[in-house]
Amino acid sequence: MEYVKGEQMVTVNLHEIDTYAKQWIKEAGERIRESFPKTLNIAAKSNPNDLVTNIDQETEQYFIEKIKGTYPDHKILGEEGYGDRLEKLEGVVWIIDPIDGTMNFIHQQRNFAISIGIYEEGIGKIGIIYDVVHDELYHVLKGHGVFLNDIQLSNLKETSVHESIIALNATWVTENRRLPSDLLAPLVKEARGTRSYGSAALEMVYLASGRIDAYITPRLAPWDFAAGIIMIEELGGVATNLRGGKLDLLNQSSLFVAKPGLHGEILKKYLKNGQW
Amino acid sequence: MEYVKGEQMVTVNLHEIDTYAKQWIKEAGERIRESFPKTLNIAAKSNPNDLVTNIDQETEQYFIEKIKGTYPDHKILGEEGYGDRLEKLEGVVWIIDPIDGTMNFIHQQRNFAISIGIYEEGIGKIGIIYDVVHDELYHVLKGHGVFLNDIQLSNLKETSVHESIIALNATWVTENRRLPSDLLAPLVKEARGTRSYGSAALEMVYLASGRIDAYITPRLAPWDFAAGIIMIEELGGVATNLRGGKLDLLNQSSLFVAKPGLHGEILKKYLKNGQW
Repeated sequence: MEYVKGEQMVTVNLHEIDTYAKQWIKEAGERIRESFPKTLNIAAKSNPNDLVTNIDQETEQYFIEKIKGTYPDHKILGEEGYGDRLEKLEGVVWIIDPIDGTMNFIHQQRNFAISIGIYEEGIGKIGIIYDVVHDELYHVLKGHGVFLNDIQLSNLKETSVHESIIALNATWVTENRRLPSDLLAPLVKEARGTRSYGSAALEMVYLASGRIDAYITPRLAPWDFAAGIIMIEELGGVATNLRGGKLDLLNQSSLFVAKPGLHGEILKKYLKNGQW
Repeated sequence: MEYVKGEQMVTVNLHEIDTYAKQWIKEAGERIRESFPKTLNIAAKSNPNDLVTNIDQETEQYFIEKIKGTYPDHKILGEEGYGDRLEKLEGVVWIIDPIDGTMNFIHQQRNFAISIGIYEEGIGKIGIIYDVVHDELYHVLKGHGVFLNDIQLSNLKETSVHESIIALNATWVTENRRLPSDLLAPLVKEARGTRSYGSAALEMVYLASGRIDAYITPRLAPWDFAAGIIMIEELGGVATNLRGGKLDLLNQSSLFVAKPGLHGEILKKYLKNGQW
């Protein structure tokens, strides 16, 4: 696509960007796998549950170097803060989580992912989530389908609460600062089962690939969900915040993604259309 | 070891049993992997959350045929009920869950395991848990260490609640028939994080391999934990029921397994030494 930026005509070649993004994410994953035998140097973020590692930071810097070297006019929004400070999603913006699921990364050396969402004038165009340890690359180019490695994923089918497995952490049905603790208890009881994997990016690709049916969490940053929501919407799933509203890609937000039908049922019956 | 059974001297060659058990579990896993493209024929068990498949039943029958053909005097306790009805653990008893995590098996075609615990006169001697899709075989021969494929696992280190990731399903902190819903809520709040994977056998090997620090669940059958507890105890971890008592291998039981130190802390502070 082409658009005018100031006086200049800018051409955006999404297929080329897509090719580079996939290549870089695989290379970054390879570097992370190689880092495992080394001791991780863990630095505390704002609270002990939010850990950051040197690998996390190095991976973000790797992406910034690659992107800025190839596309100097693209913007970058990244978890570790080495990117740009943005007030709106103008032009092409890469939204990057170098390691989504840092706690799993540190404790388990698995169940984490690299997540990259690429937005053009605020519209999600490319989403890539790489489950590094299992070498599973989930990928969407808007309008061209979602793939797990070379296998195209089917559209998401309608389902109901009674038949569904929902990713929901126990934290959100006990006393917490985000949600009334009794709000989602009936959902836990009435769903077929609940799970919690500790990585928003992975929980979203598990939904995209039909392994779970919904994922609910009251506090995420844009880099946690920027890639996953493009995949879920491409497959006919629904992505909103917990009140059923539009997601904010520049600020923290709650997230509620689900298969069609199920999203409406949970929003109405359990999330009370946001009236809590 | 040798022991007298009636008038007969019986010789139990654990190394030979171990070799066969590993061979059979790998073969069973291969058959399960081959079954994936076929449609599963799902039959409801007693409630819709407890699903059973033809693969589940065929896998149990496969083990029974192999075991009875090689060791006609061994007893078998299996989830699908094709084995023996036992009132005590005399002689050699194989305790088998052909597919632990049936709901994951059906919904995800991953995150399930085959679990085999082999007991001799009531003592756990061999434990094998096979994560079929990831081809990860966890194995213990009592006194000879625990292995993940060919890598020996380290002894479990002491840890505290604040540094720990605990496998605990959201069900157990909402209204349920097994536990007061507020009993474990403080633990959810004070732990570093909670997870839920939906397979007791996998949750136990995640503890054995240090990926999580404790696993708590109020209702399991012996075949769900028979293999895992041998591994956890071999590595210095602690396995009890939720009241801190000895596990019952012939009846349903709660399960609380944890790293050393952490087990005592949770039992005392959150599980109130069983006083609830």
